[in-house]
Amino acid sequence: MTIPPALEQLVAHLCRLPGIGEKSAYRLAFHILSEPPEYAREFGRCLETVRERVLFCERCFNLAETTLCPICQDPRRDQMVVCVVESVQDLLALERARVFSGVYHVLHGTLSPLRGIGPDELRVAPLVVRARESGLSELILATNVDVEGEATAGYLAAAIRPMGVPVTRIAAGLPMGSELEFMDDVTLSRAFEGRKALGHIDRR
Amino acid sequence: MTIPPALEQLVAHLCRLPGIGEKSAYRLAFHILSEPPEYAREFGRCLETVRERVLFCERCFNLAETTLCPICQDPRRDQMVVCVVESVQDLLALERARVFSGVYHVLHGTLSPLRGIGPDELRVAPLVVRARESGLSELILATNVDVEGEATAGYLAAAIRPMGVPVTRIAAGLPMGSELEFMDDVTLSRAFEGRKALGHIDRR
Repeated sequence: MTIPPALEQLVAHLCRLPGIGEKSAYRLAFHILSEPPEYAREFGRCLETVRERVLFCERCFNLAETTLCPICQDPRRDQMVVCVVESVQDLLALERARVFSGVYHVLHGTLSPLRGIGPDELRVAPLVVRARESGLSELILATNVDVEGEATAGYLAAAIRPMGVPVTRIAAGLPMGSELEFMDDVTLSRAFEGRKALGHIDRR
Repeated sequence: MTIPPALEQLVAHLCRLPGIGEKSAYRLAFHILSEPPEYAREFGRCLETVRERVLFCERCFNLAETTLCPICQDPRRDQMVVCVVESVQDLLALERARVFSGVYHVLHGTLSPLRGIGPDELRVAPLVVRARESGLSELILATNVDVEGEATAGYLAAAIRPMGVPVTRIAAGLPMGSELEFMDDVTLSRAFEGRKALGHIDRR
């Protein structure tokens, strides 16, 4: 018994999605076959056009529908403060939290020599150009607080600080609601290193 | 910051796949955006046509590209022995194991009153017609050995046995390579119930 080629092709496309192996791909494909035909048709049409309709901002590489994204176009945002994030998802998380009123720069990844990802695979060169030419007042490095994110932040700081742009890194420490008892050693050590004075301390 | 509607639509379609929540859907959508444009285009074209190119066999509801599937058309297969399975995936597993030379009947699900799935939601009526009209020599119930599969097998046995068709159920017991120590109680009890005589026992 052979699988119809159209189904095999669909499975091959599903297999290219991250985290989907051949078994899951078959499960998804059979689900698609069991749904009303409009579902597959509209899903397909949507996939065919998504790459033409969803662009990346020419300045910050955020999602956009024209050359610049809504944030880069927004006159109320401080164009002189740039926050560097790994992905659009990270940007969306910061926007949801309403913690930042400047603009962004999306790297679309982190440096990862083991996976062959160097600065040329990321949007690093346009960031360097932006830092050099725009007279930024601050560059905030908001890559993830993990090995690759830290390494990327270190690389970017070394590349951009010589241009006279003040470079900062988001704080590492204990997240809200956490208990010291259950925290890992690295987080505890970072929380101690990053400790801050509370109010005025009189050292007479 | 709003998400472009084309991306939101893609995420909505991805969310309808089993086991894909909103977060995973966004992850998949961003992966699709990061791949070369041909991927999304070909994937989309494939989805648009799959429902027209992949049909279900009119007799057994297996995958087919014409009215009958390759197994129902195969003159070397015994058309009088029918094996009932829950899904095409189960049929493919039996075909891979080369354990069966008859034909199949795919239910496309199991009875599940809690999820509102009764005999009318499955391919039960055509099976009853097949059993009544084709003079089958055996009907093998190969639904899964779990609560729903067992209930479905019980229901089908009760519906078809009165028509004079011999109905059998695949054996439940210990799978190859298993150790009694780690087996659950139900499997052990089924293995005891289903025990068989080994060779000739002399009861003088």
